[in-house]
Amino acid sequence: MKGKVYLVGAGPGDPELLTLKALRILRTADAVLHDDLVSPEILAIIPPTAQLHNVGKRAGTKKIRQEEINFLMTALADSGMNVVRLKSGDPLIFGRAGEEIEALRQANIPYEIVPGVTSALGAAAAAQIPLTHRRASSALVFITAQQAEGSEAANWAKLAGGGATLVIYMPGHNYAELAAKLKSAGLSGEIPCAIISRATTSHQQTHRATIAELHCAPQLPAPTLLVVGEVVRFADPVVVAQDFTVPAGADALALLTDFRSPVGGLGSSQEPEN
Amino acid sequence: MKGKVYLVGAGPGDPELLTLKALRILRTADAVLHDDLVSPEILAIIPPTAQLHNVGKRAGTKKIRQEEINFLMTALADSGMNVVRLKSGDPLIFGRAGEEIEALRQANIPYEIVPGVTSALGAAAAAQIPLTHRRASSALVFITAQQAEGSEAANWAKLAGGGATLVIYMPGHNYAELAAKLKSAGLSGEIPCAIISRATTSHQQTHRATIAELHCAPQLPAPTLLVVGEVVRFADPVVVAQDFTVPAGADALALLTDFRSPVGGLGSSQEPEN
Repeated sequence: MKGKVYLVGAGPGDPELLTLKALRILRTADAVLHDDLVSPEILAIIPPTAQLHNVGKRAGTKKIRQEEINFLMTALADSGMNVVRLKSGDPLIFGRAGEEIEALRQANIPYEIVPGVTSALGAAAAAQIPLTHRRASSALVFITAQQAEGSEAANWAKLAGGGATLVIYMPGHNYAELAAKLKSAGLSGEIPCAIISRATTSHQQTHRATIAELHCAPQLPAPTLLVVGEVVRFADPVVVAQDFTVPAGADALALLTDFRSPVGGLGSSQEPEN
Repeated sequence: MKGKVYLVGAGPGDPELLTLKALRILRTADAVLHDDLVSPEILAIIPPTAQLHNVGKRAGTKKIRQEEINFLMTALADSGMNVVRLKSGDPLIFGRAGEEIEALRQANIPYEIVPGVTSALGAAAAAQIPLTHRRASSALVFITAQQAEGSEAANWAKLAGGGATLVIYMPGHNYAELAAKLKSAGLSGEIPCAIISRATTSHQQTHRATIAELHCAPQLPAPTLLVVGEVVRFADPVVVAQDFTVPAGADALALLTDFRSPVGGLGSSQEPEN
């Protein structure tokens, strides 16, 4: 009998931002194929009996091709395993889930998609930026700088206008180029933006600037997100001006440890790796 | 001593799509102010000792004004209570959290934002629509039809173009007007769209059409979402053609029951701040 593949969102980083459903499915997985960005605390939930495959593609240096991921995923499910394809954030946003779904359909493998908290929402919550605001922004646009070449660049001009909040996933470190692209899309240099690095983890850092100042911004560690728009003015000035440590980190670990306890809600049959 | 306010996302409907953090905070709340759309299964998690206030504003007939919500929230926290402001989906997307944050800052009340799975991601996962796709869409736009009047309408023309996937929150039932607006924004009548009603609940229904056919679409029960874009072609034809029941419902309830047990994962070491 064929196994099933679950395309699961791991959320933005903080293990406490996993959904209950993702936790339940991870704890009963036979094999997990995960991205580089999934945090070690989340990987620690996976049962030690499960196969663990890092299929991450670090920016620029692809370790494994998409076709190989698709092949591994379908082969494991074909052998009867329940497979989790674990992606940071939400699986349907900039995660190439569309291609994986096509491969699963072609191989006639049953699958289910488990949504997650996408990185933009984690970052905005941590930096206290309302992504939409009745007085400042009634639209929200997610784009990625990695795909923004050639014809894509033209689309920025459309998407960035009209007061929408813009969240750029994987902005990279070439802030001067990004700022030039935003300006050529018609945005004023006065518009505020925030770079949020490693959102919702204990390493989170944020930096606020205007588009005109963006080229001088510090190179914060990946993964980063760039939020552009008037709503950034509503960000907490303290949080967005300095290093910010997530106070819930310890709680999150205690919570996960509790889940592992033999009298805990999810029982002793689901011990963590190690 | 002042209490703290948590602005918490309840996710798209399925109680299993709560985050671990939302669950922990809900179970230690002294008072909860929730929207109409938060599901009964999620409200059942709240301890019976907590005050429960439905501050929902049903479309059209406002039961309570935003200023009244702000006042109640700050007054309860001022009296020392830990207050959860529970919003369906994610609190920072079309939830007027910006105004609530401003009120909390003015009242000098400590607060924290707990992100959630926004409705668009729940709906897309359930209907198996990849919101971005390397070959079909490299941008994702969230807008709301409720705010789209006057100058807003002009912005649709910008946002809808360039092959971005468009998700319209609270589209209402005037599909003919929506279709006209999409066409005047320059979108071809051939572009596919999907109406997703009560996503991720056992009452979920979906309907697929093209923009040209949209005016004939059935009036599915609120809350609904409209997804517009070439990515809709990748939706599961079975799921999007017929009623769809979420199979995990029973599991979710069992899981939540487990969490409520006195020896469960959310033990006595994590008592609320007081």
